[in-house]
Amino acid sequence: MTAITDALRTTGSVRLDDIDPRSTPGFDGDKEAGTAALEGGAKRLGELQERLFAASRAGDERAVLLMVQGMDTAGKGGIMRHVVGQVDPQGVRIKAFKAPTEEERAHDFLWRIERELPEPGLIGVFDRSHYEDVLIHRVRSLTPADEIERRYGQIVEFEQRVAERGIRLVKVMLHISFEEQGARLLERLERPDKHWKYNPGDVDERAHWAAYMEAYEIAIERTATEAAPWHVVPADRKWFARLAVHELLVEALEAIDPQWPAADFDVAAERERLLATGGVRPAP
Amino acid sequence: MTAITDALRTTGSVRLDDIDPRSTPGFDGDKEAGTAALEGGAKRLGELQERLFAASRAGDERAVLLMVQGMDTAGKGGIMRHVVGQVDPQGVRIKAFKAPTEEERAHDFLWRIERELPEPGLIGVFDRSHYEDVLIHRVRSLTPADEIERRYGQIVEFEQRVAERGIRLVKVMLHISFEEQGARLLERLERPDKHWKYNPGDVDERAHWAAYMEAYEIAIERTATEAAPWHVVPADRKWFARLAVHELLVEALEAIDPQWPAADFDVAAERERLLATGGVRPAP
Repeated sequence: MTAITDALRTTGSVRLDDIDPRSTPGFDGDKEAGTAALEGGAKRLGELQERLFAASRAGDERAVLLMVQGMDTAGKGGIMRHVVGQVDPQGVRIKAFKAPTEEERAHDFLWRIERELPEPGLIGVFDRSHYEDVLIHRVRSLTPADEIERRYGQIVEFEQRVAERGIRLVKVMLHISFEEQGARLLERLERPDKHWKYNPGDVDERAHWAAYMEAYEIAIERTATEAAPWHVVPADRKWFARLAVHELLVEALEAIDPQWPAADFDVAAERERLLATGGVRPAP
Repeated sequence: MTAITDALRTTGSVRLDDIDPRSTPGFDGDKEAGTAALEGGAKRLGELQERLFAASRAGDERAVLLMVQGMDTAGKGGIMRHVVGQVDPQGVRIKAFKAPTEEERAHDFLWRIERELPEPGLIGVFDRSHYEDVLIHRVRSLTPADEIERRYGQIVEFEQRVAERGIRLVKVMLHISFEEQGARLLERLERPDKHWKYNPGDVDERAHWAAYMEAYEIAIERTATEAAPWHVVPADRKWFARLAVHELLVEALEAIDPQWPAADFDVAAERERLLATGGVRPAP
């Protein structure tokens, strides 16, 4: 457990108003120091990921699942690019959940989630998740209130089962301020190379900001458990949010502590067999 | 077209014996210069990939498909890590083709390939491909000779269709020497953290080296077309192979030349709507 991850974890309730989106809990360096810490940690993260992958080849069934939630412009894409992008892409599966398809709507809300759980040895990453079904669905009344009530319990049970299967859950809410979202949306409007990221619907959702914050607080309180804690990551400073999620991934992998598998063949005999093929210069 | 990609491309026949796996065609720098060129090109590759992705959001259906073939230890994994890993993982789909499953064997050999073609805006990457069905299948007589004969033609037709759909094909053979493979297999045996990558079957395949080289030459000759040329990449020097594949990806994206989509909304009106939500500091 690092100072940052310790400071961000919650298994109880939070008041988002009390968490400054510009703060950097557990880290007293500046942007330069934070960026250097992120870059400096890439090697460690990469080695842990490779060990996780290797261990799965010998039957280790464990995996990691990073779930990233946040308001539009909170920096989910940047987390994918700058944190998830630090590790070997062969060991990562990113899934972005959009509005459900007709087929998905015909099933329970967790059906499409379960199908995307990471296989052993992989780092799964969810860009949005089943939490949309208790966030926008609550704010926009897309689902009856009593059904949303039931969903919190279903989520807790589901995540408990997932954790018991050996998938380590890392739940992140990127916490930006109303003002910072305004500035980021404005930037998307002012730069032609950002227009494709702008969606007029984002402004409509913005009118419901307070209701979203309340929905997040309720979702966190109802679903933050020992098996699947939440991490509220202050995200007005992109460099801090990226460093924090990096640390969370490192911590999850260190908790698994995957080991290089032992050889399931006779190393000395294979060496002889290899040398017998010719053209091999044995090390001096 | 860069000097490297130009030097590596073939739409005709090749003699692998005449291509030195330690050579660096089209590049006269050393390892340090090559590594710097690879790192220096990351930004350009990243920007092109983002433009490809953005363009697809406005209906551009084009995509890139990198297919990587090579003998065991040729460096396919390193290409994934160090070249494909240069771009935003959200824009990449890597598919490693293993021995076909029972379901896959019940279909035509191209069935499982077609299902993994990249969607618009993505860079698809195949770690092995349908070429296994004319390489190991030929060397190990897993398929009757007349059927393998037919497959070359089927591959050419298939790739032609894929190219016509707007998927730009980049076919790469990582060309290592018999001696270099021996050294790399030996290293896997001598380092406990590499044992998991070692497979005794690799030594058995090594006994068929000459037959594999012949199978590659035939496959290349029969399937190198204008729509889907082959690139034989000397790969004894890992740094060169990575730089070369990087250049091939840049070239493919530059040929597509994807454009930032125009706004499909009224920018000025959206700006007013956004400012009306409050909390937005307009730029000075």
